[in-house]
Amino acid sequence: METTMTTPATVISPESLLAHWLGHRNLTRAVIEAFPEKELFNHSVGGMRPFSELVKEMLGMASPIARGVATGEWSTFADSIANTKQELLELWDEETEKLKAYWAQIPLERFEVVEMAFGQYENSNINTIFYGIDNEIHHRGQGYVYLRSLGITPPFFWERG
Amino acid sequence: METTMTTPATVISPESLLAHWLGHRNLTRAVIEAFPEKELFNHSVGGMRPFSELVKEMLGMASPIARGVATGEWSTFADSIANTKQELLELWDEETEKLKAYWAQIPLERFEVVEMAFGQYENSNINTIFYGIDNEIHHRGQGYVYLRSLGITPPFFWERG
Repeated sequence: METTMTTPATVISPESLLAHWLGHRNLTRAVIEAFPEKELFNHSVGGMRPFSELVKEMLGMASPIARGVATGEWSTFADSIANTKQELLELWDEETEKLKAYWAQIPLERFEVVEMAFGQYENSNINTIFYGIDNEIHHRGQGYVYLRSLGITPPFFWERG
Repeated sequence: METTMTTPATVISPESLLAHWLGHRNLTRAVIEAFPEKELFNHSVGGMRPFSELVKEMLGMASPIARGVATGEWSTFADSIANTKQELLELWDEETEKLKAYWAQIPLERFEVVEMAFGQYENSNINTIFYGIDNEIHHRGQGYVYLRSLGITPPFFWERG
């Protein structure tokens, strides 16, 4: 069948998936900013970790996943150190730049390869990428509850710009 | 270049993306089950909606999105009525079956088409699909906080089977 499309049909391109993740990272950054300095590090609900600790977990997954998928070299989870909101936001922005740099190096055929992510989680690379994105959405949603419990209105879920 | 792959390299196949979504739906179902009957409909934190209402929002998005992407026909959001946990779980399972049935009808080239989802949200179909999945993860994460605030341990985030 003749077609006028210039590229083959696909579920999503690597560029669109990166844009999707970066949109989520923009929103998560706005949620970090919405927290008062003290409550970012001290407040939680139901005995859970404060939002700063959930953010540090996200920081250990984004560029390490992209690096692993790009290169096949998986590091262990790294600990992030940040004691102020400003430090956390700076780490967030550095991590975003590293994610973009590694993502640009991922060969298309690497997405569906099954590997041992972080040396211990066997999964297809695309599923490991989704795990990182989904984990960010999951914990950010918890941050929304923390903010509401402080009487603070969180950013709109659909604002990713 | 010669290759031994039988299918072209791609970020993710439609089948794998559906399996990913169904895994999330399994986990969300387990979170519904983890709530005591009364608290499913009455409990929340910070003035937010109870988890049953968040689940009803999810119910209005799953198969309607798959139907819209498959057919180009977009309904408006539907209201779900459920007054017991059992009714909510039955709606959940029915919705899962409808999602699977519509998904099987999606032509590959429809994923990247830009449309007015639900008659009002212009986006590529794949981004509308991600919106539905991500919205489920987001609100389910909030359900985790509700459970923790009740002293109940939620299911593991990585258990999707």
